[in-house]
Amino acid sequence: MTARVDIAKRVHDHTWKLDPIVRTLLDTDFYKLLMGSLIHRLHPDVAVTFSLVNRTKSVLLCDEVDEGELREQLDHARSLKFEKNELIWLAGNTFYGRQQIFDPDYLAWLADFQLPDYELTRHDGQYELRFSGPWRDVTMWEVPALAIITELRSRAAVRKMSRFELDVLYARAKSRLWDKIERLRALAGEGPLKVGDFGTRRRHSYLWQLWCVEALKEGVGECLTGTSNVKMAMDLGLEAIGTNAHELPMVYAALARDDAELRQAPYKVLADWASIYDGNLKVVLPDAYGSTNFFRNAPGWVASWKGVRPDSKPPIDGADEILRYWRRHGQDPMDKTIILSDGMDIGSIETAVRHLRGRTNVLIGWGTNLTNDFRGCAPSGIDGRLKAISLVCKVTDANGRPAVKLSDNITKATGPADEIERYRRVFGEEGIVKLPVAV
Amino acid sequence: MTARVDIAKRVHDHTWKLDPIVRTLLDTDFYKLLMGSLIHRLHPDVAVTFSLVNRTKSVLLCDEVDEGELREQLDHARSLKFEKNELIWLAGNTFYGRQQIFDPDYLAWLADFQLPDYELTRHDGQYELRFSGPWRDVTMWEVPALAIITELRSRAAVRKMSRFELDVLYARAKSRLWDKIERLRALAGEGPLKVGDFGTRRRHSYLWQLWCVEALKEGVGECLTGTSNVKMAMDLGLEAIGTNAHELPMVYAALARDDAELRQAPYKVLADWASIYDGNLKVVLPDAYGSTNFFRNAPGWVASWKGVRPDSKPPIDGADEILRYWRRHGQDPMDKTIILSDGMDIGSIETAVRHLRGRTNVLIGWGTNLTNDFRGCAPSGIDGRLKAISLVCKVTDANGRPAVKLSDNITKATGPADEIERYRRVFGEEGIVKLPVAV
Repeated sequence: MTARVDIAKRVHDHTWKLDPIVRTLLDTDFYKLLMGSLIHRLHPDVAVTFSLVNRTKSVLLCDEVDEGELREQLDHARSLKFEKNELIWLAGNTFYGRQQIFDPDYLAWLADFQLPDYELTRHDGQYELRFSGPWRDVTMWEVPALAIITELRSRAAVRKMSRFELDVLYARAKSRLWDKIERLRALAGEGPLKVGDFGTRRRHSYLWQLWCVEALKEGVGECLTGTSNVKMAMDLGLEAIGTNAHELPMVYAALARDDAELRQAPYKVLADWASIYDGNLKVVLPDAYGSTNFFRNAPGWVASWKGVRPDSKPPIDGADEILRYWRRHGQDPMDKTIILSDGMDIGSIETAVRHLRGRTNVLIGWGTNLTNDFRGCAPSGIDGRLKAISLVCKVTDANGRPAVKLSDNITKATGPADEIERYRRVFGEEGIVKLPVAV
Repeated sequence: MTARVDIAKRVHDHTWKLDPIVRTLLDTDFYKLLMGSLIHRLHPDVAVTFSLVNRTKSVLLCDEVDEGELREQLDHARSLKFEKNELIWLAGNTFYGRQQIFDPDYLAWLADFQLPDYELTRHDGQYELRFSGPWRDVTMWEVPALAIITELRSRAAVRKMSRFELDVLYARAKSRLWDKIERLRALAGEGPLKVGDFGTRRRHSYLWQLWCVEALKEGVGECLTGTSNVKMAMDLGLEAIGTNAHELPMVYAALARDDAELRQAPYKVLADWASIYDGNLKVVLPDAYGSTNFFRNAPGWVASWKGVRPDSKPPIDGADEILRYWRRHGQDPMDKTIILSDGMDIGSIETAVRHLRGRTNVLIGWGTNLTNDFRGCAPSGIDGRLKAISLVCKVTDANGRPAVKLSDNITKATGPADEIERYRRVFGEEGIVKLPVAV
């Protein structure tokens, strides 16, 4: 009557030492490789430090995540190298419609790459986790470090739940996500819809992200543009998506020798990017030091880029500002794409898509609320410990100089206070607001 | 990276011919064995016919369930015999606190028992499924026949769903049931609560019932009194529960030689029952021909029985009538139990338990709304086909005479119109109402 037990599997299960969270270096966001290739070519000598920051101060990570387990997982990630079939896929696959997007030099470098060392200490109940070394090496830590801490926190939260409670937990989380996907289907029924998974870094777990991406594929079909997770893109036959992040303007700004160079740093990033990438890869991330001044002072050619990703303004405000910018420069917004990826969830997705349809193309980069929304799914004592937190791993200095980000929401600003003051003076404060940050 | 495939299991799966719904004769309700033992001892020569009746006329079973599959499943059930370990368990286990509840003669008879033949035809889009032969044989068909048709209907409903849609379907159903169980836990926190699974006959599937019973065990612990499913009671170490059903008064009534004997038939059943069973097994099912007249005309000793199961009045009306009856006969309701098992769901459970607590003991026999509630769980085209229907398998004649049931709700009456008229005249119509039937 009962299914026969697979003895080999059972013995394997009860003798394992570690259940690795990151099992391949390809389990990272695609933009890390695009940026990595640029850094490898143009900035091989820049040294940086990336640091973990938990913006959700009420959650004391040292209380929730065991240091020994954290070290084991970080050490395991350091033992990984890209697999041969992964490198062949990176070399042979088409990304954003282009073949051979990666330099053979960069791929050769990746073949030998391993994650560099880390420095782990504690302060006020939070882990201080730092990675220092060549930028092209250190940048690769961002996503695995965040994924490891987030999943260790999930694992700790559910550790004392019975097999049955876990069954109910995931049943509820599946129901919850599927309800959102049904709303997305309805939204797709009204007109064009493009959604992509941006949820690797703050996912509940690897397997849960995989379920979420497959659910999205099943639910919205062609409206799923792809996933930022390179491993899942390869395994599921999806497009790998994502372009660039704040670390580029932040390092360029840190390396600027004076205020004049600082003011030009965000545009220098784009010029370098355009020397390597073309077409739909030309996506502007305008908010590192305030989007309003960014657009006002941008060289004319910036308006010709294919997309803009506002990342810290309320989505409709940010999008409307971009539409005005494009129209001012004689660009047709219907030829372009606005990528919305800042804490989106089904309600804000519906509102933004309905607001922007017919005016421009929209791509929703759906992150934490796709891959880590367990609200109301667990018993009350555990539920809070499954609530996603605002955890980031940001560049904090480059060649010994502090790195700064302002963003359109000053709550998200990072860097030493005096440098923040200097950046605000250099870039101006127009359009910068103060809003709470959820994820 | 991926889990290794169990090749033997995979090959077994893709070469099977039948996925049996009923895999053991023990997958039945416990009361069938208690009644079977009585029939075996007292009525070995009575011949009966049991017939399937779908009271949900809007559902055309012939459109939803394939006749070939139905015959395969019925034929498979006919091939089964009790397993040796099952018979040993029936002989050695304690039921309702008593050892050796079953006659050795009856157990010896069970050891050779196989389900008798069936007659399957179609009429107006419904299957006409009849079982004829010795009562002790035919009675054993009731539960497997209902479970087979109900599960074949579920299987047909979900046949075209993708692996993913199925995953979501069961996730939602689990969430839905667990929400009910959390309300039961809250109810248990307020005072005594006893719930039992009565959901075998109209379960969504065997495996789903198993999940539901395990969920209930996990969720309410000691408040779970047991399950009517004998196989699950054995496998899960739960109490097997249930006592007697309408077929006893219906056959006794059919065999009555005149109106005077007919009027006494329901009490003759109880007298025979008491000659075999004692203690908590002495549960009165008063509603076969109307509860109000049943209590008014009952011999004094009926009031001394341990429990009553009102089965067709609104639960609180039915229970209040029993409380008045017991008090009228100087019985303390706190020594007794009222078993509520007619279409109970979480809302009516809460209302009834809160109403009766402190006045008597209550046992909720939770059936279809425990093991087959998929409302709102599937896409709209499929959802209706997963909605439980009111399917019964009732005795329709005994020794060639028609069997009749009136019940407290005339909508549930069965039998030829002229006989129903005669029974209404003989028993009276006081307290009998007309209400819609859900499950």
